[in-house]
Amino acid sequence: MNYSQSVLNGDRLLLARLLTQVENDSPESRAALIELFPHTGKAHLIGVTGAPGTGKSSLVNQLALHFRKIQNKRVAIIAVDPSSPFTGGAVLGDRVRMRDLSGDTGVFIRSMATRGSLGGLAQSTANMSQVFDAAGFDIVIIETVGAGQSEVDVARLAHTTLVVEAPGLGDDIQAIKAGILEVADILVINKSDRPGVENTEKALKSMLDLAHPTERVFQHHGQLMRTSAPKQDSPSAPMWIPPIVRTVATEGKGIAELAESIAGHVAHLTQSGDWAVRDRARLEVELDALIRETLVNRFRENVPQKQVDDALERIIQRELSPWEAVKSLMNGGYK
Amino acid sequence: MNYSQSVLNGDRLLLARLLTQVENDSPESRAALIELFPHTGKAHLIGVTGAPGTGKSSLVNQLALHFRKIQNKRVAIIAVDPSSPFTGGAVLGDRVRMRDLSGDTGVFIRSMATRGSLGGLAQSTANMSQVFDAAGFDIVIIETVGAGQSEVDVARLAHTTLVVEAPGLGDDIQAIKAGILEVADILVINKSDRPGVENTEKALKSMLDLAHPTERVFQHHGQLMRTSAPKQDSPSAPMWIPPIVRTVATEGKGIAELAESIAGHVAHLTQSGDWAVRDRARLEVELDALIRETLVNRFRENVPQKQVDDALERIIQRELSPWEAVKSLMNGGYK
Repeated sequence: MNYSQSVLNGDRLLLARLLTQVENDSPESRAALIELFPHTGKAHLIGVTGAPGTGKSSLVNQLALHFRKIQNKRVAIIAVDPSSPFTGGAVLGDRVRMRDLSGDTGVFIRSMATRGSLGGLAQSTANMSQVFDAAGFDIVIIETVGAGQSEVDVARLAHTTLVVEAPGLGDDIQAIKAGILEVADILVINKSDRPGVENTEKALKSMLDLAHPTERVFQHHGQLMRTSAPKQDSPSAPMWIPPIVRTVATEGKGIAELAESIAGHVAHLTQSGDWAVRDRARLEVELDALIRETLVNRFRENVPQKQVDDALERIIQRELSPWEAVKSLMNGGYK
Repeated sequence: MNYSQSVLNGDRLLLARLLTQVENDSPESRAALIELFPHTGKAHLIGVTGAPGTGKSSLVNQLALHFRKIQNKRVAIIAVDPSSPFTGGAVLGDRVRMRDLSGDTGVFIRSMATRGSLGGLAQSTANMSQVFDAAGFDIVIIETVGAGQSEVDVARLAHTTLVVEAPGLGDDIQAIKAGILEVADILVINKSDRPGVENTEKALKSMLDLAHPTERVFQHHGQLMRTSAPKQDSPSAPMWIPPIVRTVATEGKGIAELAESIAGHVAHLTQSGDWAVRDRARLEVELDALIRETLVNRFRENVPQKQVDDALERIIQRELSPWEAVKSLMNGGYK
């Protein structure tokens, strides 16, 4: 079946089928990805991340509605769902979202369970983005839950990364945010009608000050995006200081302001040349991942599984260290 | 410097230095790991994971004190700290912990920032565990924060995995727990003097029932560990149903009960043969990671960086898909 031509022609059913193929990493999906690749590079990839309880999914939903209805953009959502396949969280999530967005061919929502390796997940997400990009979606929103590496991976994939926070999620939630702040382009305080919103904003601001000390701004001849527009009269790029936007997604409050901040970030990326920089970084990560995967597949073809099993047995008996085992596997069986 | 002999002799200073070498993945550390490996395989590896705000670190602290003072065990703690190096979270964490545990040569605490790749982090943690194991620590506690893959990686590394929860951390925190429950051997409700503890326990119990349906228990001829001891008269192993233990770590409450549950899990692992199964699984993951790393290093030695750079440039121009690029890199430059 020729997926790529159908997807380019806007066939929604075959798009859905191809996404499943991509998730399963089938040979058909690889062939389609090669054919679709020349048609990519146009979509704006937006990563949205934040802890559970921040109302991230509602926010993504509202944002997609805004892009669709106000800006007339075609929007795809990839929801990387931490619920196991077992609990059916991914399916349920889709159903809840669909109440607002279903029936609109300019919106496509896809959930993905986080089974398999993280590397595999990042790869699947990257591939799905490419499919949506080639299929003519203007905006691809990638939504993830989690802490640490997965955020960094999303940031690598996205042009714009939103980190969602909410008041009253616990005192030391800030600890985990320190690492996340470094990948945030825009900070969102959702559920901002809740008590404690001032404290949350204050905490985020002081962390931002730590992460973006003013001296660095001056050194770069840049200006705070929150106070005035960046100048391009200096060869060094202006710095982007993540703005803090308050929203109440369930009531649609602050969504227009958030969309404006996102547009501001796109303008910044384009003017500073960072759009191309991020595009390059993303493709570099992808190339690297593919190289690794291909190397492992080659190894498996060349070294009999029995040799690996025997080595493992000797490691378990503590006769051989893992390092020594790898050395002998490479020299003996791998050419 | 011969680290391994000094570490085997109980030299604390060289142990600390070797751990730094291991974190930096230096050639010296690799040599030492090969020499230390035959001395590993004795320690009980305990993984402790949970969201920020659950008081996980205090719990680990109290647990270590209990193992040390009541059971006279030598205890090592590897705290995988999600704070960035920038904020100094890892250092601060150490200082806070040290008030209770410092000056005791039977306790060793090591923080590790989660920089670098997740694969690299898992590898460093595995290597550090081996160093502590060889150095004669009876128990190695590996503490992580985060959601998703990092928990699974800890579970793979540990013989016993504790998942820490706390009352009142937000409504939909349960969503993220669904995946985590599948790797939990023991569930801890810390801060159990807080309101809402009954609801938390009820939610955990119903999720446990979903994850461990009674039919499966009967099919395995096993018995609920919470109601009676497992029988070994059937060839199929008894099932372990994760017990739920309430603690208030800051007051030392429930720590003895938790230690008892951990001892129960060790007994289960030994009787069922699962100890060996987990040992094997851990070493298999480690061998696999080492093979991958070595393959990549070989590729880098064999394929000039310029070829990779040129391929990336063509990918960025959308002249070549990543898949096609890898194929040509492998065929042209890699022998």
